[in-house]
Amino acid sequence: MDLSTLAGGLDTIWVVLTAAMILLMEGGFALLEAGFVRQKNAVSIIMKVFVDITFGAMVFYFFGFAFMYGKDVSGLIGTTGFMMGGDLTHIKLSISHDTYWLFQCAFVIAVISIVSGAVAERINFRAYILYTIAMTGLIYPIAGHWVWSVGGWIGGLGMIDFAGSAVIHALGGFSALAAALFIGPRIGKFSENGTSNIVPPSNLPLASVGAFILWFGWFGFNSGSTLSATNSSIGHIAVTTMLSAAAGGASCILFTMFRYRKADPPMVINGSLAGLVGITAGCAFVSDGVAILIGVICGIVMVVATEYLESKKIDDPVGAFAVHGVSGSIGTLALGLFAKPELTEGVGRGYSGLFYGGGWQLLGIQALGLVIVSVWGFVLTWGALKLINRFIPVRVSRDEELVGLDVGIHGVPAYSQDHEFIDIDALRRESK
Amino acid sequence: MDLSTLAGGLDTIWVVLTAAMILLMEGGFALLEAGFVRQKNAVSIIMKVFVDITFGAMVFYFFGFAFMYGKDVSGLIGTTGFMMGGDLTHIKLSISHDTYWLFQCAFVIAVISIVSGAVAERINFRAYILYTIAMTGLIYPIAGHWVWSVGGWIGGLGMIDFAGSAVIHALGGFSALAAALFIGPRIGKFSENGTSNIVPPSNLPLASVGAFILWFGWFGFNSGSTLSATNSSIGHIAVTTMLSAAAGGASCILFTMFRYRKADPPMVINGSLAGLVGITAGCAFVSDGVAILIGVICGIVMVVATEYLESKKIDDPVGAFAVHGVSGSIGTLALGLFAKPELTEGVGRGYSGLFYGGGWQLLGIQALGLVIVSVWGFVLTWGALKLINRFIPVRVSRDEELVGLDVGIHGVPAYSQDHEFIDIDALRRESK
Amino acid sequence: MDLSTLAGGLDTIWVVLTAAMILLMEGGFALLEAGFVRQKNAVSIIMKVFVDITFGAMVFYFFGFAFMYGKDVSGLIGTTGFMMGGDLTHIKLSISHDTYWLFQCAFVIAVISIVSGAVAERINFRAYILYTIAMTGLIYPIAGHWVWSVGGWIGGLGMIDFAGSAVIHALGGFSALAAALFIGPRIGKFSENGTSNIVPPSNLPLASVGAFILWFGWFGFNSGSTLSATNSSIGHIAVTTMLSAAAGGASCILFTMFRYRKADPPMVINGSLAGLVGITAGCAFVSDGVAILIGVICGIVMVVATEYLESKKIDDPVGAFAVHGVSGSIGTLALGLFAKPELTEGVGRGYSGLFYGGGWQLLGIQALGLVIVSVWGFVLTWGALKLINRFIPVRVSRDEELVGLDVGIHGVPAYSQDHEFIDIDALRRESK
Repeated sequence: MDLSTLAGGLDTIWVVLTAAMILLMEGGFALLEAGFVRQKNAVSIIMKVFVDITFGAMVFYFFGFAFMYGKDVSGLIGTTGFMMGGDLTHIKLSISHDTYWLFQCAFVIAVISIVSGAVAERINFRAYILYTIAMTGLIYPIAGHWVWSVGGWIGGLGMIDFAGSAVIHALGGFSALAAALFIGPRIGKFSENGTSNIVPPSNLPLASVGAFILWFGWFGFNSGSTLSATNSSIGHIAVTTMLSAAAGGASCILFTMFRYRKADPPMVINGSLAGLVGITAGCAFVSDGVAILIGVICGIVMVVATEYLESKKIDDPVGAFAVHGVSGSIGTLALGLFAKPELTEGVGRGYSGLFYGGGWQLLGIQALGLVIVSVWGFVLTWGALKLINRFIPVRVSRDEELVGLDVGIHGVPAYSQDHEFIDIDALRRESK
Repeated sequence: MDLSTLAGGLDTIWVVLTAAMILLMEGGFALLEAGFVRQKNAVSIIMKVFVDITFGAMVFYFFGFAFMYGKDVSGLIGTTGFMMGGDLTHIKLSISHDTYWLFQCAFVIAVISIVSGAVAERINFRAYILYTIAMTGLIYPIAGHWVWSVGGWIGGLGMIDFAGSAVIHALGGFSALAAALFIGPRIGKFSENGTSNIVPPSNLPLASVGAFILWFGWFGFNSGSTLSATNSSIGHIAVTTMLSAAAGGASCILFTMFRYRKADPPMVINGSLAGLVGITAGCAFVSDGVAILIGVICGIVMVVATEYLESKKIDDPVGAFAVHGVSGSIGTLALGLFAKPELTEGVGRGYSGLFYGGGWQLLGIQALGLVIVSVWGFVLTWGALKLINRFIPVRVSRDEELVGLDVGIHGVPAYSQDHEFIDIDALRRESK
Repeated sequence: MDLSTLAGGLDTIWVVLTAAMILLMEGGFALLEAGFVRQKNAVSIIMKVFVDITFGAMVFYFFGFAFMYGKDVSGLIGTTGFMMGGDLTHIKLSISHDTYWLFQCAFVIAVISIVSGAVAERINFRAYILYTIAMTGLIYPIAGHWVWSVGGWIGGLGMIDFAGSAVIHALGGFSALAAALFIGPRIGKFSENGTSNIVPPSNLPLASVGAFILWFGWFGFNSGSTLSATNSSIGHIAVTTMLSAAAGGASCILFTMFRYRKADPPMVINGSLAGLVGITAGCAFVSDGVAILIGVICGIVMVVATEYLESKKIDDPVGAFAVHGVSGSIGTLALGLFAKPELTEGVGRGYSGLFYGGGWQLLGIQALGLVIVSVWGFVLTWGALKLINRFIPVRVSRDEELVGLDVGIHGVPAYSQDHEFIDIDALRRESK
């Protein structure tokens, strides 16, 4: 046993364990989304999460990974690594290439899961499978290549995004917004006279526990992004992640008590998640105090953004855009203000934010990168759905939607009462 | 890469991963408590868990940690470390101070979550926020300082409590008892003619899964308390934790089959947790056989204690006192009998329990420390609630309680049936 | 701090963390099974999981481990290690013997949990406790000894089964089949006129989340089976595990869309699990591509096997045999075809499968070993139940079954509506 074997083993288990934690987030997404939607669509949303994790992994193995992390061409796209084959020597890590694939695979599955919430209760299942292939095979990998891969052009300009407030959450959130706009609101969500109807979550305990599982997974998401267990930032990353999430939830509790005269449960759930999304870009690069500030801002702005979408008659059943799109943008831009030079050494290139003497440069780069990945996600999602819609209607039929997608498309309700299926008295007579 | 970098990295990921596991226990508490209470209060109890984790983390960052682990004054209180600032050189660990904070933060959140169960279904939400600040900022940190911090006076006497049967669970349990007494039983729980009414758990599958998540987190709680991955006790700690939990659950199954002629599900859930609580102090210090013994005793005594509280008309909806207060006390005292000298070298100072030739000394110290932290928790909780009650009624109004806190305070039910909100036939006519 | 201390610490935390992940799978089993059965039996199935984890751990501590991993006699059985005592020097690992026990204990609990699903909704609770003792104390430990322990005769022939497609899943699955046959179908499942009635799952969101938790735990199950964190296969194991699970789920989605004109949620849940079961034997020994192939085959064959059992009037409520028995068999045999010599160095003895130039030898050994452990599990389970049935009827009474085991045996329903217990209006009048 020598030191380098040990170090390699340590890095490998770190990445495998954190990848597993991120993949458990799919259980969190399933609970969160099933709890937020109506009973009649609880299974259908979970089936979409199964599509995310199963098709997502397959697609990312066959070609998504290659486009994202393969050998760069012109800063635009990767060209090796299909089925983990070809020249990947530009990836210089202490872990094996396939371990790296696993971690990145967990990321791509998270991106598509963000979108799944926004189209809940009305998207056609087959169309969703096709969109999943587009997102995990092309849309996210290409944007991700630009920012994160060796040779990517936006990363070359100097954009920093530690674990993906922009690349994962803003891209996912703006894609979710495009999808929600394309597919239109659920029947009955907005009345003809202009009012919004509240669709109460079918199962808030499930949704809450989904949030706790996501919170747990986020420690893997952010800390694991070091890809090395001896990276000295790991402790700090975990701490800023915790502080921002707590600040997001706490500020949301106080803000909704002030605004609605009651702590609003769905908002508080999303407020904690907003804090987590917001800190994802800067978890390694900002101070504890800034992490709290980011959490507070994200927790409050998420509420306002949710109301704004409501007022614009955009129907995003689980708040995917407000949580991921808005908080992801805040977190990305916050780095332009608050990146601390002693923390951005190494992967963050030593850049400083505006308030740490770095001038406007980093803020400009962050804004540029954010706009590009957001617009890319929005436009490509719109285009993909438009293309898919030519072959398969993206939206379910009116009858399927009214009956609910669980029975309408998957043939089984989420919750079954015993008496619907077994007549106990009849059985009792029979059994005599 | 040198050896000490590697060792530091290893310790850091160990503490970060185990801290994440402990924080996931909040999801476990949420499920357990939401499953045990009535449907009409399932959201409100989960909102309290959100208060625990969000306000708890904020308060512990701003001042709780400083009072607990800051530079000692007279053995009574810490005075540095507010917002992780000031002189913390007395904390000598291979991990960074903020990584240490994260782990301890997960602990304080567990303490307040113990109390949340005892006041379920009737506490005012704003009052609960204030109490959370008191508990996580003062009550627990100061008692914790006495036992665990460098210079703390009870620790100086020689009390040993590896992962907190006394500091976490007895303190939390006796605080829960004080709170349950202060706030009084739920309406309808005890009839005027003296009988107790059973309030059946609204969702036992959720409660059970909460227990399994808590069990998982406990491996982080106990093993992670080594704060170092090369501590040679880690394997033994995990094994005693498993054995005691299994013994607690198994004994509770057999005991309730004997006593009630049926294995009682809520009791079995709590029996496993009782075994976990009981072994928390001694997981590193007792033999496998003693771990089983502690589990058996805790599993059975928890049942008896639950019945006793019932008979005394004390309403503790989830059994917080019987599980945490009673088993925590048993576990703390058990060390005075069974601490094994070869296991208490190092952090346990080489002390021996009565049955290992150590005489009565350790037992006396353990009893003294236990009484002090329990009385401290009870008295300060009572006092805090009394003070809060001057400004905000600690108990909700009768109408809010009857309607349920979910709708009464948070404006949304835990579970919503589709048909309550959408008239499918009407929609169908509309849609034509 | 020296290198070997560090390496020992690293291996210990790896095994403790992965053991905890495997134990969390009990929460997954509880959710999966409670979601698949009817409401009236949701608690009873979870109580069985509590029996698995509590009695399983106790029995395996007192004698199961000794029979399995104790000093070998004639290749047939272990004879030391009762309560971790006696000579265990033949176990040469960098982790302590009790840490090793914990990991193996998590395995045995998984085996018995497989059977619990097949006998759901109709087994007598006390009989189930006795069967659990038989399974965790004798049936599994002895077969496991043959394949996995130093000196075991089947292992000596050269059978390879990395993490247990045969030893865990085929044995568990064939035991489940025997138990399902012995105990007979649920009342009303098959009509007298020969038709099968569908018993719709009571709670599909719970079942789905159970699958995600099992998936998470499987990374611990397979990767942790290296028992050493510096084993160079860990990354590859995690990747093949992910690929096979994803392929199983994806193929099942497509196959059920083709066969039933709808993606069938319960099948998709089980399809992902089938992929996981199938790769368990070969996760370290086959290529990525073969992992995908195994997943695809297991996902599809599981559907066909489920239909076949249905047509034969065998009632296996959660599909335990189709998932574990069938996929476990496929995975075990697949090694005989696809074991890759460069991957089977070390623990896999350098054997090659048929398609890698190894000839028929390995396939023959795998088939032999598979048949032996499957027949052993089937016959011993049948025998154990027959013996138990002499003292305690294995099946509940007809009335208990009709009422449901939750109320019938455990005296409490899984889900309670508030209004069943509290008359709010009456209380409101009283309160005035």
